[in-house]
Amino acid sequence: MPYFDAASAAPLHPVAREALLASLDEGWADPARLYREGRRGRLLLDAAREAAAEAVGCRPDELVFTPSGTQAVHTGVSGALAARRRAGRRLLYSAVEHSAVLHAAEAHEAAGGSRTELPVDRTGRLRAEEAAAALGPDTALVCLQSANHEVGTEQPVAEVAALCQEAGVPLLVDAAQSLPWGPVPGGWSLLAASAHKWGGPPGVGLLAVRKGTRFAPQGPRDEREAGRSPGFENIPAIVAAAASLRALHTGPGTADEAARLRRLVDRIRTRVPELVPDVEVVGDPERRLPHLVTFSCLYVDGEALLHELDRAGFSVSSGSSCTSSTLTPSHVLRAMGVLSEGNVRISLPYGTDEADVERFLEVLPEVVRSVRDRLGVPAAGRETAATAGGAAEAAPAAAAEEPGEPGAAAEPAGLVVDSLGKRCPIPVIELAKAIREVPAGGLVTVLSDDEAARQDIPAWCSMRDQEYVGERPAERGAAYVVRRRA
Amino acid sequence: MPYFDAASAAPLHPVAREALLASLDEGWADPARLYREGRRGRLLLDAAREAAAEAVGCRPDELVFTPSGTQAVHTGVSGALAARRRAGRRLLYSAVEHSAVLHAAEAHEAAGGSRTELPVDRTGRLRAEEAAAALGPDTALVCLQSANHEVGTEQPVAEVAALCQEAGVPLLVDAAQSLPWGPVPGGWSLLAASAHKWGGPPGVGLLAVRKGTRFAPQGPRDEREAGRSPGFENIPAIVAAAASLRALHTGPGTADEAARLRRLVDRIRTRVPELVPDVEVVGDPERRLPHLVTFSCLYVDGEALLHELDRAGFSVSSGSSCTSSTLTPSHVLRAMGVLSEGNVRISLPYGTDEADVERFLEVLPEVVRSVRDRLGVPAAGRETAATAGGAAEAAPAAAAEEPGEPGAAAEPAGLVVDSLGKRCPIPVIELAKAIREVPAGGLVTVLSDDEAARQDIPAWCSMRDQEYVGERPAERGAAYVVRRRA
Repeated sequence: MPYFDAASAAPLHPVAREALLASLDEGWADPARLYREGRRGRLLLDAAREAAAEAVGCRPDELVFTPSGTQAVHTGVSGALAARRRAGRRLLYSAVEHSAVLHAAEAHEAAGGSRTELPVDRTGRLRAEEAAAALGPDTALVCLQSANHEVGTEQPVAEVAALCQEAGVPLLVDAAQSLPWGPVPGGWSLLAASAHKWGGPPGVGLLAVRKGTRFAPQGPRDEREAGRSPGFENIPAIVAAAASLRALHTGPGTADEAARLRRLVDRIRTRVPELVPDVEVVGDPERRLPHLVTFSCLYVDGEALLHELDRAGFSVSSGSSCTSSTLTPSHVLRAMGVLSEGNVRISLPYGTDEADVERFLEVLPEVVRSVRDRLGVPAAGRETAATAGGAAEAAPAAAAEEPGEPGAAAEPAGLVVDSLGKRCPIPVIELAKAIREVPAGGLVTVLSDDEAARQDIPAWCSMRDQEYVGERPAERGAAYVVRRRA
Repeated sequence: MPYFDAASAAPLHPVAREALLASLDEGWADPARLYREGRRGRLLLDAAREAAAEAVGCRPDELVFTPSGTQAVHTGVSGALAARRRAGRRLLYSAVEHSAVLHAAEAHEAAGGSRTELPVDRTGRLRAEEAAAALGPDTALVCLQSANHEVGTEQPVAEVAALCQEAGVPLLVDAAQSLPWGPVPGGWSLLAASAHKWGGPPGVGLLAVRKGTRFAPQGPRDEREAGRSPGFENIPAIVAAAASLRALHTGPGTADEAARLRRLVDRIRTRVPELVPDVEVVGDPERRLPHLVTFSCLYVDGEALLHELDRAGFSVSSGSSCTSSTLTPSHVLRAMGVLSEGNVRISLPYGTDEADVERFLEVLPEVVRSVRDRLGVPAAGRETAATAGGAAEAAPAAAAEEPGEPGAAAEPAGLVVDSLGKRCPIPVIELAKAIREVPAGGLVTVLSDDEAARQDIPAWCSMRDQEYVGERPAERGAAYVVRRRA
């Protein structure tokens, strides 16, 4: 059963499994104790720290283990900000950081600090100029991921690190997604990562703080992990994490495997748009993680798509709003300004069978078609949306109304589609049908209170070459105005 | 090789090991995902939560898993204090709580809150009246352990819980040491525990917050564990922790094993003072954990004692200052007002072989004798200390000086022993020798800058029936004054 969600959690690496089993018997005692079981634990912990530090590219005394990558980020961000308190209180971070960084930024703001999200381009990449422009005298810390967890785009870490060094500001790199593939080069000050992303066990994160970086751990402390991560060390998991990371970085075949997965991903990137109408492959096609690809399908409900793929045996994830409990689409896709509906992220684990990828490509078109059929989207995607006759009939809730409808906060323009109360992808499907009802140059206004519409209606316009006029406030939700081009 | 330090970390329980291995293959995926691997993880996590909640005696939705018992305490204390901020900002806790509670209290104070340590009696037990007297209108939270981790004394949790309920103040119980032996009864509001104390794997703590208890988690949050413990769930370890706790609580033989260990501990409590001169067994002899006993040996260096016991094959821990890197003796022994030098804690794991306990009793007297010999303490302990002739010769650094020695901040009284720069147990050894030099009713003043002296000189007086007059400031360290009784 192909599992294509390594970016969430990779299955346990065989080296990790072996090391974990061995150290369950050797590493359960308190490494702070002087007796033999404690000394044995300390030796294992020290060796693991050396191996992990070598893989990260830092000194062993610069690296501590935390209970998760999330806690590594939280500890790193809060400790670096606190140490820089007198220099400034502004945190800069790209708009596509992992939620762990966003949550740390929210906590910083709640505690009286300030924060600035740096925008990314349509591939999800931060331009170094944006960082340069934002770096100011009050900047306490910059956070930048090495590569994005949802779309795979690599970030210009070395360039931003150089800018930060020049400005005397520390840079924290969230390396969770890229560390399995090699160390992060460049002059970072802090680095965080997570073992279960590389096939280590859950329960282990890494936090590296380079010598010379000011750091003041926050909250209650104890004597464990240099005072930077309180609580009894999870030595068996730490040993397994370090052993598997070392195996990936120094074992034979890792580079070959990266190249092989890159080819498989290239094939997905090329074939999916050929096989499925109305698909947008997102993320940088070149400067990207080897194993990760993301695409979005117009007129598709992400949850239904995941469900059908799961039934067909494929485990993938999605940044669509309709698959989460929050009702908001992925902040990454939003920051990129790309479609969020029908979103699929594929991240191939080490050793993925090429035949599974081929089978995925066989299955996907029919899965998308079946979901679209159920939503009343006429077959054949783009062509159909442009030529279908009975749009009003197929979408009975899309009512044409006159401009100036009472109750709207501003005058709705042209044909008004009332999609209030309907969730992604219905507002976009209704828009695609309604646009057929107006002449070239005519307007369609979609009323929607679904958060995804704000992102997906402009993205649809861009994909379908229609003009997105803008958004207006409405009594409920918002009014999105589109002008038909042809 | 007998391991007698279960209170630090218990070896992995066979049920935990089996459950861990099984769930490494089943529980590595993200339980927030909708695909089959995620659903499987979610099922495992839910089942573990139910089992753990049943063992704790709470509802599953009242219990979250944390990465350690320490983090359970930190999260519980900070969340309860924050939610009670308007009611008051004072934290009450017994003086013998685990360092995790002390560190949380320090962090609370650093953030502008206040704290009060409640004293304990000589057995380490908090009297409920102390809690009653301290509970005030500004009390935000009370923390009380179910049983002490260093001396095994059980605390009056039910009585204090009733007082807290009456006062409308939540009670957080640190159940780390007692949960392996059964649930904590009584009306607690929050409870914290740690899996590696009961033979679960490291990396798992429990935090229960009863419905109706106001709680506001602090710091960055995510959607994991009801927003109370951020970071990817360590499902294999959680499953193993819950399975082993359930096995202990419901499996056959746990009560029998507790009774058996209690008898072994009783034997240690009885035999050690018979076999070794100048020993004080500490902690409540009846209201105590079944598997734990602590005693202190006069005129013994704790580090040397542990080292010799380790060489003889016994792994034990100690609250003596000379075994830690902090140079301060255990805060628990200090709060109890008992001797800290030559301290040994024995905590027997499940299934301890009775023959190992007997062998320990055989080995201990010779080990203590050899350490005392090396320190120049004449053999035969008490008698010897009272009859030895050449005290000044055996302790050349114990110089007799006249009162009014220049440089002392106050007039040193009687015979002055300069133990400055010497560490535990030397100042006490020198005192024991010097007291022979003065007549009954005469004074000895010990100058010492060793933190342990403040605790061990009064404790020595109590054990040796000498009068402790008091402590005076001195240019370096302090001057401790003792009057010879007989």
